[in-house]
Amino acid sequence: MEFASDNTSGATPEVLAAVVAANAGYAASYGADQWTEAAQEAVRKAFEAPQAAVHLVATGTAANALSAAILCPPWGAIYSHEAAHVEVDECGAPEFYIGGGKLVLTAGTHGKITPEGLAARLARTPQGDVHHIQHGMLSLTNLTEAGTAYRPAEVAALAALALKAGIGVHMDGARFANALAATGATPAEMTWKAGVDVLSFGASKNGAMAVEAVVIFDPAKSWEFELRRKRAGHLFSKSRFLGAQMGAYLQDGGWLAHAAQANRMGQRLANGLAALPGGRLIHPADGNIVFAAFPRALHVRATAAGAHYYLWPFDQTLEGPGEEEVTARFVCSWSTTEADVDRLLEVLAG
Amino acid sequence: MEFASDNTSGATPEVLAAVVAANAGYAASYGADQWTEAAQEAVRKAFEAPQAAVHLVATGTAANALSAAILCPPWGAIYSHEAAHVEVDECGAPEFYIGGGKLVLTAGTHGKITPEGLAARLARTPQGDVHHIQHGMLSLTNLTEAGTAYRPAEVAALAALALKAGIGVHMDGARFANALAATGATPAEMTWKAGVDVLSFGASKNGAMAVEAVVIFDPAKSWEFELRRKRAGHLFSKSRFLGAQMGAYLQDGGWLAHAAQANRMGQRLANGLAALPGGRLIHPADGNIVFAAFPRALHVRATAAGAHYYLWPFDQTLEGPGEEEVTARFVCSWSTTEADVDRLLEVLAG
Amino acid sequence: MEFASDNTSGATPEVLAAVVAANAGYAASYGADQWTEAAQEAVRKAFEAPQAAVHLVATGTAANALSAAILCPPWGAIYSHEAAHVEVDECGAPEFYIGGGKLVLTAGTHGKITPEGLAARLARTPQGDVHHIQHGMLSLTNLTEAGTAYRPAEVAALAALALKAGIGVHMDGARFANALAATGATPAEMTWKAGVDVLSFGASKNGAMAVEAVVIFDPAKSWEFELRRKRAGHLFSKSRFLGAQMGAYLQDGGWLAHAAQANRMGQRLANGLAALPGGRLIHPADGNIVFAAFPRALHVRATAAGAHYYLWPFDQTLEGPGEEEVTARFVCSWSTTEADVDRLLEVLAG
Amino acid sequence: MEFASDNTSGATPEVLAAVVAANAGYAASYGADQWTEAAQEAVRKAFEAPQAAVHLVATGTAANALSAAILCPPWGAIYSHEAAHVEVDECGAPEFYIGGGKLVLTAGTHGKITPEGLAARLARTPQGDVHHIQHGMLSLTNLTEAGTAYRPAEVAALAALALKAGIGVHMDGARFANALAATGATPAEMTWKAGVDVLSFGASKNGAMAVEAVVIFDPAKSWEFELRRKRAGHLFSKSRFLGAQMGAYLQDGGWLAHAAQANRMGQRLANGLAALPGGRLIHPADGNIVFAAFPRALHVRATAAGAHYYLWPFDQTLEGPGEEEVTARFVCSWSTTEADVDRLLEVLAG
Repeated sequence: MEFASDNTSGATPEVLAAVVAANAGYAASYGADQWTEAAQEAVRKAFEAPQAAVHLVATGTAANALSAAILCPPWGAIYSHEAAHVEVDECGAPEFYIGGGKLVLTAGTHGKITPEGLAARLARTPQGDVHHIQHGMLSLTNLTEAGTAYRPAEVAALAALALKAGIGVHMDGARFANALAATGATPAEMTWKAGVDVLSFGASKNGAMAVEAVVIFDPAKSWEFELRRKRAGHLFSKSRFLGAQMGAYLQDGGWLAHAAQANRMGQRLANGLAALPGGRLIHPADGNIVFAAFPRALHVRATAAGAHYYLWPFDQTLEGPGEEEVTARFVCSWSTTEADVDRLLEVLAG
Repeated sequence: MEFASDNTSGATPEVLAAVVAANAGYAASYGADQWTEAAQEAVRKAFEAPQAAVHLVATGTAANALSAAILCPPWGAIYSHEAAHVEVDECGAPEFYIGGGKLVLTAGTHGKITPEGLAARLARTPQGDVHHIQHGMLSLTNLTEAGTAYRPAEVAALAALALKAGIGVHMDGARFANALAATGATPAEMTWKAGVDVLSFGASKNGAMAVEAVVIFDPAKSWEFELRRKRAGHLFSKSRFLGAQMGAYLQDGGWLAHAAQANRMGQRLANGLAALPGGRLIHPADGNIVFAAFPRALHVRATAAGAHYYLWPFDQTLEGPGEEEVTARFVCSWSTTEADVDRLLEVLAG
Repeated sequence: MEFASDNTSGATPEVLAAVVAANAGYAASYGADQWTEAAQEAVRKAFEAPQAAVHLVATGTAANALSAAILCPPWGAIYSHEAAHVEVDECGAPEFYIGGGKLVLTAGTHGKITPEGLAARLARTPQGDVHHIQHGMLSLTNLTEAGTAYRPAEVAALAALALKAGIGVHMDGARFANALAATGATPAEMTWKAGVDVLSFGASKNGAMAVEAVVIFDPAKSWEFELRRKRAGHLFSKSRFLGAQMGAYLQDGGWLAHAAQANRMGQRLANGLAALPGGRLIHPADGNIVFAAFPRALHVRATAAGAHYYLWPFDQTLEGPGEEEVTARFVCSWSTTEADVDRLLEVLAG
Repeated sequence: MEFASDNTSGATPEVLAAVVAANAGYAASYGADQWTEAAQEAVRKAFEAPQAAVHLVATGTAANALSAAILCPPWGAIYSHEAAHVEVDECGAPEFYIGGGKLVLTAGTHGKITPEGLAARLARTPQGDVHHIQHGMLSLTNLTEAGTAYRPAEVAALAALALKAGIGVHMDGARFANALAATGATPAEMTWKAGVDVLSFGASKNGAMAVEAVVIFDPAKSWEFELRRKRAGHLFSKSRFLGAQMGAYLQDGGWLAHAAQANRMGQRLANGLAALPGGRLIHPADGNIVFAAFPRALHVRATAAGAHYYLWPFDQTLEGPGEEEVTARFVCSWSTTEADVDRLLEVLAG
């Protein structure tokens, strides 16, 4: 009953097999190996972006922070949602990599920035006045931290505001596959066709061991990215193991199938949670993340039975008796089964 | 005939097997898994350092730069050899992580800093005067970039000067196992018993896929390290795969056996290179790296035959006819065989 | 009719005379001169803080950002008001000097942080979890950007929360003299007796040319401050001119007299603005800054007559006819006279 | 007998008078005042550079570090002389402002970089390889720290190498007027006509209180400079006082006359030192700085008589009896008189 995060699952069989296969013999290092090159090509093909620069790193925070560093100057505002991973969960990585930068936050229901919210924020940052930070970049997360998915048209509406403000658009796609599975959009539709300049294309959460690609649709910033990556210690010597993972991840559309499975389990779980006595959903469950509220007694019972998930927000008081409500986050992964979901629902239902 | 670097080899069978085994089922993330904890304990045991803090990262540059960041203030001098990896091969990673810092270099024959050289450098940096950078840290590489090994007493002599100057000592142990195999020293003798405060304990070059441990002998700086690691994007979500590698690396002394093999091949190669007509060694070949000079014609022939190694320094002119000499670097790894060495020597000898 | 800012006024006669007098002959540089030493001693005396470290810089942004750099680690949260100068008006200077840092903002009416607001913010930043930024520092502005004054007891209540959270307290005292004049508190009561660790003690706005003192009540951080100041280019070679200004500023309580005059003019102006037809105050006018709302027609008239002040916030639409209201900020200085105030009120009243 | 530095002198009468005059009445702040604008125009005129961006700061370290930040990326090599102020005397300011950077040093006799030395250094930094820092900028000091002057043709030869390497050229002109007086070159000949991109145009050492202009000959980087200056706390609110100094400094060629006087005193002193029994010059005394060696007994005597100057390098042992030699640096300023020089020579001669 593991629903704490999709990063508690392992790698898919095909990813593991590719890593094992890549181990044979000698290989050029630092990205000059055939696995890396094949993976880069596979990403370009998946995104219908033959000119894009594709660079591999091992963590989502590295992908996000390095992306920010090539988009945003040290005196730039990073427009993002107040719940964004770059704001909440990276211990200040964007600021470290940018050498400054200021997260300028919007609220937005269900984890999504709205055009109105973004426009208001942009308007409140005076430009051309040296006392104030300047427009820096827009960062969207898709799938969002609330488990909802931006549709391409929603991305495009926000990106148009960014373009008007003269800044680039980053998408944190730690769960990009889940966003595609949720919306039916193609990789290209969700990114460069909608105005995204740089994508953190996550694979670790959806069946890789540890690999993410940064996709830079306009390759002019590619060399700067490479220097920043090396300088940050994120260039792997035995890069074949990153390349092998990413290649296997994309092979035959496996990544989308795995994400679809995770999303189906999310939907199944969401339906079950909403049907609990006293249960209700907090956000629409577009993908593999489900936020729900339910009576505290259910939480006590499920936890005692070994269910793993996070109360969200983290600081809910659990002291005292009674039937008060808790709110919790559940995450399904590529390896979550119907039986896993049903068992969790059973222990919650009692 | 692959002698370009020890990072062109793959992982050892035991490391690969451990990664495969660790993939089964769910595991806690971000270092709370059993593999990481076992690896940390194994490192502490190998170093006879039950109090040490042990943190895993995936690259040597990350290990070095994060180590520097907890030892050196932004206005600090990093005393190191002019050929050190931190100076030459990390695209300014220490300066990025420290938020400044200045590499203050000494020459020193055969890749080693001498006490006299260090003392002279320390004396030339005025202290207590706000116009000048202050003593920051000492960074030693062992095995050195020249392929030589510091003995524990040599480390201790340098560390004593650092202690007197009030600064900490870092050891870049990207090839730490090779240094131990070369000297017969124990891990403890080579580090904390000799005055080393923080070690970049490399495994990637000696048979892991991608893992290094930072060993902080005085754990007071451990929490700061953890924050800096996260903030730099070097904390892995599926940390079990780092832990599994390091655990298998240390299992039953395999790491030392692999290093001994690489060193033996280095010695065999050194003997052969020195015996070539016109051949001579540039540095003593204490470990798995060999620097030699030999006639250009031999280089042309070996390269044509498919031998891989680097001319060193990189900017040797190869134009024109004649018997001029080249100098080159050869690196053996855990997977280098006697047959590999002999084949290389054959094609060089013609 | 100059009410745009207190920094449009010049220096007081005594400050100018001191600068002229200090010019005679040779003087030691970089702070070793008698004027700097006398100024440091005068600050310590004024604050009843014989152990305090006192360092001079030329701008308020430098004082604030350097203060932040010695209080807050790169991964720290800087708790401040959303209107604070460090957030709004310094183009990201704290983030630059800290090498990161994140401004965590509270609203708070009339420019003041409340204990409730601060406690809520502190509670929302998870501690001891490496994914999140950690408590860094508290920064209060007094006189606030809204023109209100914290009383010592208010400062103490906030500082107590900071102390409990294990972080230091900075006060941005760009208008510190005005805050003292508004409250009757002594320098010591408003700072170290209330729990302030580091003060940006402004003089430029209240009659100096360009000098601020950073007062570090616990001198343990003094040397780090000096290194950071030099490294930022804020150590003056001909430091006598900073010392002379600060010495003359403090001489015979002149600084408090000038602030009292500015505050009196603020009060006179506030009374007049509130009495305008359609006029009302936005914030209590505790000091020399007055925020008021009044019909747009008055603004058009006053501006045409040459009155200088800022509409606040900056983005008020002034298009179109009618009697709509504007809101504006007026700042009085040591050199503002009753006649100046009365003339402004006349042109507003029409 | 004050020869420790040209920064121990005060301001010239015309600079002081201008500051006093600028104090009258109100003035726009942050550089929008008439004095700043007039000074900018005067600099442009003096340099025959109508398009140049001119920005004022108060210290030479600020001018140098901000200049470096707009010329050099964080992963860039700053080619400079090993004795350069940016390397030796700024506590790492360039690295702080650049967010990295690495000073790559050349020796060069008498404080000057040679084309051969620079070419060798450029050749030793591999380009296009992500492991190594990249060419960043060239920084020359004129008048050099050794008291010698680059001629325009010498600057041009070095700048041509920089241009070929694709990097910009900075000149640290803390004593720029002395370099002009020494060579007879015009401001334009010594800078943009010779290939200099950005000049730190010092005034503080030659008769101002505290002002330097950064002259950016290609104004495309001007806005970035302004943002960096504000963000570093180097934008003055009461900017009129910086503008007034710089305007008066340039008025009627006074700056060149003062430098010529300082240089004449340097020449007189050099002649006298060389004529001392056992005296000799260490570097050619092109300007106002003189390095000489002479018997230790003379130093003891002069110091006892109240002469101020620095032994150079700083770490000469003065213990023990005897006639050993010391080496010392003497600096003349605009206010040094023939009587001052002769008195010093008298006490040295005994």
